[in-house]
Formats: sequence, C-alpha cells, structure tokens
Amino acid sequence: MNHKILAAALGAAVFASPVCATPQQGSGVAWDIVEGLTTEIGPRPAGSPAEARAREWSKAKLEELGFRNVAIETFRTDAWTRGEETARLTSPYVQPLAITALGNSVPTPEGGLKAELVYFPTLDALKAAPEGSLEGKVAFVDHAMRPTQDGSGYGPYGDVRRSGPSIASKKGAAAIIIRSAGTDSHRNPHTGVTKFAEGVSAIPSGAVSNPDADLIARVAARGKPIAIELTLTGKPFPDAPSGNVIGELPGRDPSLPMILLGCHLDSWDLGTGAIDDASGCAIITAAALQAQRDGKLLRTVRVLWAGNEEMGPPIGGAQDYARRHAAEAHALAMESDFGADRIWALRLSLDEANAALGDKIKAALWPLGVVYHPGPAHGGADISAIIRDQKLAVIDLGQDGTHYFDLHHTPDDTLDKVDPDALQQNVDVWAATLKVIANAPGEIARVEGEGGGE
Amino acid sequence: MNHKILAAALGAAVFASPVCATPQQGSGVAWDIVEGLTTEIGPRPAGSPAEARAREWSKAKLEELGFRNVAIETFRTDAWTRGEETARLTSPYVQPLAITALGNSVPTPEGGLKAELVYFPTLDALKAAPEGSLEGKVAFVDHAMRPTQDGSGYGPYGDVRRSGPSIASKKGAAAIIIRSAGTDSHRNPHTGVTKFAEGVSAIPSGAVSNPDADLIARVAARGKPIAIELTLTGKPFPDAPSGNVIGELPGRDPSLPMILLGCHLDSWDLGTGAIDDASGCAIITAAALQAQRDGKLLRTVRVLWAGNEEMGPPIGGAQDYARRHAAEAHALAMESDFGADRIWALRLSLDEANAALGDKIKAALWPLGVVYHPGPAHGGADISAIIRDQKLAVIDLGQDGTHYFDLHHTPDDTLDKVDPDALQQNVDVWAATLKVIANAPGEIARVEGEGGGE
Repeated sequence: MNHKILAAALGAAVFASPVCATPQQGSGVAWDIVEGLTTEIGPRPAGSPAEARAREWSKAKLEELGFRNVAIETFRTDAWTRGEETARLTSPYVQPLAITALGNSVPTPEGGLKAELVYFPTLDALKAAPEGSLEGKVAFVDHAMRPTQDGSGYGPYGDVRRSGPSIASKKGAAAIIIRSAGTDSHRNPHTGVTKFAEGVSAIPSGAVSNPDADLIARVAARGKPIAIELTLTGKPFPDAPSGNVIGELPGRDPSLPMILLGCHLDSWDLGTGAIDDASGCAIITAAALQAQRDGKLLRTVRVLWAGNEEMGPPIGGAQDYARRHAAEAHALAMESDFGADRIWALRLSLDEANAALGDKIKAALWPLGVVYHPGPAHGGADISAIIRDQKLAVIDLGQDGTHYFDLHHTPDDTLDKVDPDALQQNVDVWAATLKVIANAPGEIARVEGEGGGE
Repeated sequence: MNHKILAAALGAAVFASPVCATPQQGSGVAWDIVEGLTTEIGPRPAGSPAEARAREWSKAKLEELGFRNVAIETFRTDAWTRGEETARLTSPYVQPLAITALGNSVPTPEGGLKAELVYFPTLDALKAAPEGSLEGKVAFVDHAMRPTQDGSGYGPYGDVRRSGPSIASKKGAAAIIIRSAGTDSHRNPHTGVTKFAEGVSAIPSGAVSNPDADLIARVAARGKPIAIELTLTGKPFPDAPSGNVIGELPGRDPSLPMILLGCHLDSWDLGTGAIDDASGCAIITAAALQAQRDGKLLRTVRVLWAGNEEMGPPIGGAQDYARRHAAEAHALAMESDFGADRIWALRLSLDEANAALGDKIKAALWPLGVVYHPGPAHGGADISAIIRDQKLAVIDLGQDGTHYFDLHHTPDDTLDKVDPDALQQNVDVWAATLKVIANAPGEIARVEGEGGGE
C-alpha cells in the first residue's frame, strides 16, 4: 500500500470508528424527555431543590404531552447530602484514591481520619472478622461485581454496599471503604444508599473505583501495613421535601381498574440520571402515548414519576403513592428502572385465568426481539408498595443489563450513554404490551403468592 | 429454551464476558515495571516529591535488572501544581461540571470567578472573535477530538489545549474552558500543558469532560445567556527539582556510537501514568534485555527514563540530556511514548547508504505484524534535542493509537488499561529491531533534513 492510499484509509477510518465524544442525536418523545431532564435539571437527588425543580419540569412536560389529571404529590422524607470526599494511602506508598461517600454515611472527624486499613477480599471475609477486631481501623472490602445480562448480580454483588457498613460498624470499624458495586474500569466510584441496622452506629462509608480497588489489592498483596487518610463530610438530613408526579391518559371505560406505569424522577447526585432513571420515565410516557395513537385505550393508563426512590424506603415515592391511592382500583403495574438498553425478556405474573392474555402479549413481543421467560415478574421499587397492598398483576419487560452497572450511580450516567435506537425499541415494546393489556376487558389477576411487593 | 438452560447460559455468560473490574494479570520484565511504578509510586508529576521517589525507584530497578552505569541526573525546572477545581453552570440551569485545570493555569480570584460563558464551536471560531470582545467573560471552546490510529489527530485536535488559552487571553477573557482533548465519553476531563505566548497574561484554564462539553453545547443551543461559577487554584511554581535516570547495557565494541532508547518517567497527576509513560519505559527496558538474551549486542544500548516531559520544554529531560551528553557519540535514537497497544507501523529515518539495514529491520518485523510505512520517523519529545543536535538516525515503532486519547492525561491512566499481551508484542518488536540495529557494524546515518528534532 502506498502512502496516499494509507492516508485515505486512515481518513476513512476516522469517520468509521465509533466517536464517543459526539452526543447521539435522537428524536421523539422519549428522547426529548431524557434530553430535557438531563440538560435542564441534571442531578436531582431526593429531598433537594433540584428534585423540586424536576417535579415542576415534569408536571409541565406531562401536561404539554396531553396527559390529564397531572399532579404533584409531595411528602416529607429523610434525606442525605454529599460533602467533601478525599482519601489517600499514606503508607507503604502515597496514592490518592478516587472515592465517593455512600448515602447515609456520616462524617469523618474534624480534620479527617488517619487509620490503619484492613483488607478483606470479600464480604464473607468481613463477616468472619472477630468482634472488636476492627476497633479504630478502616475496613476495606474488595468484593468485586461481575456483569450479568439481567441485573441478577445486583443482589449478591450489591450486598456489600447495602450491608457491609453495618457489619463493619458492629465490629468496631471507624469507617468502611468498599470496592464500588459496579462493572466498569473508570476512576468514577459508584455511590448508592447503605442502611445501618437497628442499634448499629452509622460510620463514614465510601466506595472507591474499580481501578483504585485493584491498586489497594496490589498494595495489600505486598504484605506491609497500610495507612489511610480519609475525609468524608456527607451527612443525613431529616425531614426533606420530596414528591411524586402523576398523570393519566383516561381510558374509554374509566370504571375499569387502571394500568399503572412506574419510574423514578430522583437521581443520584454524581451524574445527571440519564439511565437511572430519566430513561424509564421517558419510556413509559412515550409508550403510553404511542399505544393510543390509533385510538383511546379501553383502560386508563397512569404514569407515576416517583420521588425519592434512591434513599427510600421507609418513606419513598412508592410508599406515599400506595398510601394516597389505596382506594383506587389498579389492574396491573409495570416499571422501567434498569437503563435504556434493549428489552429482551418478558416475564408475567398473571393468573392462569389470564393465560390467553399472556399469549397475546407473547405474540405481540416476539417480533420485537422479546421472548417469554418463566418465573415471576417483580415490578420495581416505585410500584412495590401498591403491588403488595393490592396484590396486583405484574409484567416485567427485562432490559439488557450487561452494561448497566458500568454507569449506575456514577458521574458517567449522562445523556451520551443513551442509544436512541435502543430507547425507541423500549418504547415500541412497552407500547405493544400496553395495546394488549390496556385493551383487555376482563379481570386481570396475578398468580397467587408470586412476584411483586417489597 | 427452558428456564434451567437459560440460567446455565446466563451463568456461563458471566464468565465469558469481559470483566473490566479485574486487573489483567501479566508477567515479565515489562509488566513488572509498569505494575511497580503504578503501585509503588503512582502519580509522579514533574518537579514533585513523587517524581523524586520515582527516580530512586527507577535507579534501583535498572540496577536490579543488570543495567550498568545507572545514574540519576538532576536538573531544575519550572513546574506547576494542581489545586482545587470546581465549576458549575448557574444559569439558565444549575449543572455541576467535571473540570480539571491545564498545566500553567493560574488561579481564579479569591472566592472564585462568576461570569458569563461565551460558546465557541471550534478553535477557529475563538480566533475569529473580535479583540476585547471577551473582556471579563469565560470562553468555552467546544473543539472535539476524534480518534486516529496513529495519533496524528493530536496535532489539529490538541491545538485547542496548547494555544486556546493564549488566544482567549489576548481577547480579554477572564478564563477559558475547553472540551477535553480526548476521545472517551467519561466524566474524567483530560489535563495537559498549555503555553502562554510571550507577553500574554496567563489566565485560569481548564478542560471539561466530553459529556460535560456535550451538556454545555446543548445548553448553548437553547440560546439563553449562560452564567458560570469557576474555581481553579492550581498554579505554577518555579525552580523545582526534576531529573533523568539513565542506564546502559554495554556493547561488545564500546567505541561504536551507541543506540539511545527514550521514554519518560514523570506523569500527569490525575492517573498513575500507566500508559503515559510507565509502559514506554517498560517496553524499551525489557526489549534491551531481551535483545541480548542470546549474547551481548555489538553496540551499547542506553535507556533514558526522562524527567519533566509533560511540562517541558524549555527545560525538560530531553534538553538536559542533550546538554549533558553532547560529547558522547550516538548512532540512532528511538522512543516509546504512545501507550501500550500493539505496534503496527515501522518508519525509518535512515540514510540511503543504510538501505540494507532498513530492509533487515523490515524483514524482522513483518512476522510480528509490523509493516513499513514511508515517511520520516520522528522519535519523540525525550530524544528530540539529542536528535536535533547530533542529527541522529531515528526509527519509529508506531503503536495503535485508536484508544490512546481515551485515557491520555486522565485519572483513568491506570494499570488495568494495559493489556499484557499487547505490552509483550511491543517488547518483541523492539527487541527484534534492536537485534538488527545494535548489531550493525558500519555507520548509521539519517536522511538529511528528515524527521526528528524539536
């Protein structure tokens, strides 16, 4: 190949290769919602002024889109606010660490914490540490997450975040640092809520990025004592304002129990909440509109853009909704809160009497690349309380979660990560499902004892 | 497929999918150098105590590997140190921005800068702004980089970082923010040095990540005035200690002009300098050892692990080396400073009289996946001064740079980004080249007027 041909080939390759720096261009209702929320509101943590601005934005958007009975329903909740967060190893090597505090973390002492760091390869290893053995020390738990296609890893891998701090505190630790519950390799640690068990003192709790956890593991492997300096000033604040936004597309027969579609409006503060969960709100909303494009649906469809998903329960949007709307008849609930990648798996929690309805949904979805999977549908956090209280039927439209935990709860949860084609596939699948379920005249009931609930 | 089969398939997929969170396991001299520098030293900015620790570490490592005449050669240089760095849009929307200061940036006023932000889509648009039109304002230049296989994009795309601040200052700007000169889509902005032209006042200068630049572009597209709050407290500091580390593998005929292999030891402070440029030092050093595995080479091979590449010239490791070793005879120089991806392109700046030597190198490299490309070899920053002064022949072993600017000068420049197999391919290609060139008995001369130099 001569030089000119090579240069031409190189030039062409520039345009052929994926260009991450350019935002994907999208269009349509779903894209507009994600673009608008991430651009005009951005991070909107539960209980914050930004979450309040997001409610006003959402109400105006739903009204503009033609939803009826649009309302903001506020409630008070405990919340948490981020502060300063820095950490560095000081011995045997000086190494700054990329760290972020977990929700419900309490502050380190004035001037920061200087302590020995104790390495645990897994959460089980931390559990096995003798009582009192961590007195005054910082526990590091190197509990690595692996990606799964359906998000099932969030249970076993995410447990280090949910219960690790409480376990370390019981053993006397002055603070805990975990390897992020995340599957990427960037210096952006993953935040998320932790819960301290009844009677356990809250301690400063943080997560380092995967490359930082790799580093700590390599340092620990050298067998020398490790010293750390840690400053985390984030702290809980009680009695903050949060709220849900709801809106409806009234059905031809408003006396029939309605279909409830859930997502959440709040986001973590590090990113702009594009995949968690502006996309979910965008998908359910655009799908409801698309489903009635050829005429009104039989049943009313209500969208619930919930507040305080990330820090709730005990008081999140799910709980407030279930309490406030307990007297209204719901037929079935569905939620979108797992990003914006393609839907591939259908799960149904429908009574045997609704088998024909289930078959109609299966038939509607397989041309869209979605196949039926046995096993219960679970719904999601924002519809969990109403599912439990009213024993609702549930449909899950399972998204590809292979890359979800690359971005989840990180600064990288931004608009450029949303693929407009995949987003539209979500809308198409939801709309096809709604056209079946919201036009079903008879009773819709869930399998007894299966799925849903908190 | 039934549920059990699906579960088994999902389980298998967990192990089959690429797992970013686990560090790549490597072995061998090159891996050990990158692993050691990133683990035991970490960030080592020019002029810092960490760079001094890195020199001691490197001297010990070269001696342990059997290099002779290992020496630390210190010099003084102007340097720069990072401070606090925060930015947020305050109007029309409140949005925190992921920002980092550029080397040679000066601090914002006490309490930060609050100003109007003016959007420029490209560096040319900034150049076209009328004199004085930016008085008291912050210029934002949305000059997006695209990946190229050979790094050729660093010229046109990187110019926004090198000259943008100087241009904005001339037009009266109070500060400048650029879209990072980088090709990734993470919230990790790219730092790097900027230079203020003679007689131009230094101004606070920062870069935001690509997703943040996308956000600013979307906000700008809405046509409302944009207000920003900016705090950058990083600042230059003069007369800091830096230094080179050199070591030799003496040849069978020490009277012959030597082969010089360059890399740099300093790194930017945000990451641990794994690909920039611990890998380069690892590659040249391991290759020199591998080349003499079957017996001593004819010529002496010297490695130069240079200090202060990132902030130099006028006073970097390259300049100090050329001054200090001006009286010594060098035959040819080569450098590795473009990451750790596979080598694919050979370029030669050799005199026609050395055509047979060039053919031997071509023949040695094509089985390793490296093909000859016409055009001059350039060497690199650390060997530039000696190439210029002694008119040295140069060989470039060009690496795949498609993903280099995803990581370059970011917090993400960490060990997990180095592929041990690709690293070893680099060592193999360098060793094969050295076996030819360091065993060549006759004169080695470069094409007159081609390549190399500063």
